[in-house]
Amino acid sequence: MEVVQFVTSNTGKFKEFQEILGDGLGFNFVHRALELPELQAPLEEIAVNKCMQAAEIVQGPVLVDDAALAFKALNGLPGPYTKEFLQKIGLVGLNNMLAAYQDKTAQAICTLAYTAGPGKEIKLFTGSVEGQIVVPTHPIKAMSFDAIFQPDGAHSSYAEMGSKAKNNCSHRYKALMLLKGFFLKKGYKQSK
Amino acid sequence: MEVVQFVTSNTGKFKEFQEILGDGLGFNFVHRALELPELQAPLEEIAVNKCMQAAEIVQGPVLVDDAALAFKALNGLPGPYTKEFLQKIGLVGLNNMLAAYQDKTAQAICTLAYTAGPGKEIKLFTGSVEGQIVVPTHPIKAMSFDAIFQPDGAHSSYAEMGSKAKNNCSHRYKALMLLKGFFLKKGYKQSK
Repeated sequence: MEVVQFVTSNTGKFKEFQEILGDGLGFNFVHRALELPELQAPLEEIAVNKCMQAAEIVQGPVLVDDAALAFKALNGLPGPYTKEFLQKIGLVGLNNMLAAYQDKTAQAICTLAYTAGPGKEIKLFTGSVEGQIVVPTHPIKAMSFDAIFQPDGAHSSYAEMGSKAKNNCSHRYKALMLLKGFFLKKGYKQSK
Repeated sequence: MEVVQFVTSNTGKFKEFQEILGDGLGFNFVHRALELPELQAPLEEIAVNKCMQAAEIVQGPVLVDDAALAFKALNGLPGPYTKEFLQKIGLVGLNNMLAAYQDKTAQAICTLAYTAGPGKEIKLFTGSVEGQIVVPTHPIKAMSFDAIFQPDGAHSSYAEMGSKAKNNCSHRYKALMLLKGFFLKKGYKQSK
């Protein structure tokens, strides 16, 4: 069975990934903890660049994941820099960035990039969810914006709805469903 | 006379650079317009990386410059991402990022990186100025935060004090004075 390394420094992401995808892809995903340098660039360009770096290191199939919050009032920022903003100013700081604005709408975006190996084609799978930035009421989980993002149609933040409900509607869920479709099709073709 | 290429996509920076440094370094600085990819990283790491890229392209001596605003209330952000924040949310947007905070203090930072060529040592020169983020009252110059940064001890923003006064006290002035000292010493040694 082909082994695809999911390259991320964030173990929480890999756990979610497993919960969402389950088994039955015909591929075996394993976690590889690597911290890769990221560009200042649009989300898709960052993901492609990280995927190329990861494939060079691993010398085989890899998947990378980039998550972002795009605030509408800030024209898509903090976007690619969401992780660093989380680290440096926390969830309250992210909230405060919208203090001057009535518009609290935001997109949560997951960008996945997969390649079968160095020099091979890079496939992108993007999932996004519209929602609002809310005041964090839930105990705060490090390195996650779940406690301040409330998807449209939901009555609570990702953090408050719990991982099961979140993983049935999230930006990462949407991106992973596209990835799953790609792998199932690929497996079907291979077995012919 | 040795030619050092000052690599920047911002022509305004090169103009300031000439106004501050004048002649008499024993080196000839020329402008090279290149847009180089930047890392998500601390300021000095970004400058070193850009300098390495520039030296590879130019195959000779290069200087690169990175300017940033570090808001104290935001733990140093937007920092390396100041240029993108300026492009996407403008000076009013940068101001608004501090709406929730009493503390409007900030550092303006200029990081210069010089190398004599690819693979050679990279020298860093950092100049910083303490000040306040103020409401922009001056007509806004594209790609510059001069209209919202007021240095401590001054009664107006960089933009309002005019280029001559600014260039005698600015973060770029301080960094360039360190660079000048380095070049004068280098010239002195070479002539012995």
